Amino acid sequence: MADKSIMSYETVALDDEKSALVILDQTKLPYEVEILSLTDQKDIWNAIYLLQVRGAPAIGVAAGFGVYLAAKQIQADTWDEFYPQFKAAKDYLNSSRPTAVNLSWALNRMEQVVLDNRDKSVPELKELLHKESVAIKDEDVWMCRQIGEYGLTLIKDGDGILTHCNAGQLATSKYGTALAPIHLGRERGMNFRVYTDETRPLLQGARLSAFEMQADGVDTTVICDNMASQVMKNGWVNAVFVGCDRVAANGDACNKIGTSGVAILAKYYGIPFYVLGPTSTIDMSIARGEDITIEQRPAEEVTEMWYKRRMAPEGVKVYNPAFDFADNELIAGIVTEYGIARPPYNESLKEIFKKKAEAEAAKKK
Amino acid sequence: MADKSIMSYETVALDDEKSALVILDQTKLPYEVEILSLTDQKDIWNAIYLLQVRGAPAIGVAAGFGVYLAAKQIQADTWDEFYPQFKAAKDYLNSSRPTAVNLSWALNRMEQVVLDNRDKSVPELKELLHKESVAIKDEDVWMCRQIGEYGLTLIKDGDGILTHCNAGQLATSKYGTALAPIHLGRERGMNFRVYTDETRPLLQGARLSAFEMQADGVDTTVICDNMASQVMKNGWVNAVFVGCDRVAANGDACNKIGTSGVAILAKYYGIPFYVLGPTSTIDMSIARGEDITIEQRPAEEVTEMWYKRRMAPEGVKVYNPAFDFADNELIAGIVTEYGIARPPYNESLKEIFKKKAEAEAAKKK
Repeated sequence: MADKSIMSYETVALDDEKSALVILDQTKLPYEVEILSLTDQKDIWNAIYLLQVRGAPAIGVAAGFGVYLAAKQIQADTWDEFYPQFKAAKDYLNSSRPTAVNLSWALNRMEQVVLDNRDKSVPELKELLHKESVAIKDEDVWMCRQIGEYGLTLIKDGDGILTHCNAGQLATSKYGTALAPIHLGRERGMNFRVYTDETRPLLQGARLSAFEMQADGVDTTVICDNMASQVMKNGWVNAVFVGCDRVAANGDACNKIGTSGVAILAKYYGIPFYVLGPTSTIDMSIARGEDITIEQRPAEEVTEMWYKRRMAPEGVKVYNPAFDFADNELIAGIVTEYGIARPPYNESLKEIFKKKAEAEAAKKK
Repeated sequence: MADKSIMSYETVALDDEKSALVILDQTKLPYEVEILSLTDQKDIWNAIYLLQVRGAPAIGVAAGFGVYLAAKQIQADTWDEFYPQFKAAKDYLNSSRPTAVNLSWALNRMEQVVLDNRDKSVPELKELLHKESVAIKDEDVWMCRQIGEYGLTLIKDGDGILTHCNAGQLATSKYGTALAPIHLGRERGMNFRVYTDETRPLLQGARLSAFEMQADGVDTTVICDNMASQVMKNGWVNAVFVGCDRVAANGDACNKIGTSGVAILAKYYGIPFYVLGPTSTIDMSIARGEDITIEQRPAEEVTEMWYKRRMAPEGVKVYNPAFDFADNELIAGIVTEYGIARPPYNESLKEIFKKKAEAEAAKKK
């Protein structure tokens, strides 16, 4: 299990000296913190393909650094010699995850630098590509920090925050989105209690959010998704922070399955529910949530245990109540062997017992 | 995996001819339907201890049959010779699960028959014990059938019913409580669609409810707990049926963790949420749900995979959407890198994009 003291990890970084892409291998989490230093293009391709680096923004940043490192190796004297080799390297990386939007977005942006600078020398081109790849990461960090700043205005030191899935640092270059206010607050010496829904079926909350919160010294408690109601009822949650995959023009926010349920619970308990994400996820061309097509995934994710071993960081707190109760105002009827009690129950349940007593008295006669 | 065609199983039965307690081994579900025929008292003790038979009513019935079978073997000529041997057998079975209320309740009831009939011969005592053990089961079946009858008035042929955990036939002698209307409806040729929450951490919904629904030929779909909101939003659920561990005098209904969340979701979507259970679970001495102490269970149930293999019956349907969306009315704010949008979002999101355009224009200058 990963050493809790390791906090200085970066999800994606460029090591200029070693000409390497440095990533935190997310396939090993939460068991080991393994930092990979990748110089070979095949290894970089594999890292994206195998989800060693994951999360749309992080993939984009990795691709930018990756194609820059390929460009750095190119031996060419002219633009005309340089570009085909660059294009081949770009197409190769782009094939690692064909449907990842941020991957092609970042690679196209890098290519544009080459296309826009036909008059430059090859060393100048390499320098411009270096700058652009660093800019992609810097912009990602800036965006997350901004979200963190705004998010921090919504909570105060000591607050309890419930989150679902992982929209954290592990999916971006730094800070994350939903978890950005927590990381930023930690930098400023603030303390929070964070409740991470385990997020079935793939357990991103138990594996990733719990890991990165714990690594940042946050008081972290893992719960099963169905325990969120009880945690809220206990009064432990001041705000819910979730990320988003796509936001419609009316504000309907599409995110990991279970998000709508958490939002309904939060409303019921009077807890503010916030969606945190970059403007790139807001799709003003979509009027409302119903217009977003929802991906259906394989049954085996649900019916077969995906991880055959421990699925949350060692030592993380767990809240595991066996029961909770449904408030009577939520219950349409209580069906017993002596009939159906209807609200108000303080009266109708007595009626049920009256019926029972009568039935038993009749039996004895 | 268990053969779907096997429908005639009984959770607990008495085989008079073979002097055996016959149970469906629940530790093998959903992998195998194994019927155990137990004649030895040690095996009967083990069956209760090892949860081969589980569910409060089913345990009570098994204990009644078990102690009758012990009594049947007793070689005695007088009551005074008979009773100490009976008492020893009773105490032995009672030690199998010391905290199970129905276990001692059933055994005490059997003992009372002996105590009330000091004037009877040993063969007569054995006959009375046989009758009493059969009565315990018959009453359990009657109670469940009654609940089923009342519950059936709440749904109609073709309805979709969502359930949580397992309050089914497997926990009782027949029919179950929450699932009694479904089984009873099936006997009458009705069809239902049943959605079973998998019910983390111990997966009683995926393993047991899905099994018994499928075994009864019901159109059954397993979902992760966090998918209930989407299933309701799809309009697939006409009613929610859950069991109960304890109901307070005001109707607050304590049941498996996650029940309150399902109730809140049902209310939000305008779906009636029903609690089905015998009057023995209604505790009029408890004013409200808050007065019920909730059992906390080990962290490992959540953090380590309890089953290392398949956890729902082979061939059962699964609904596994990757995402859902939170209605805008549930969202307190959308936090972006250009500020926080507040309701109404159709206006505030445009404001965010205006800010973004201004910032980008300023950058270009």
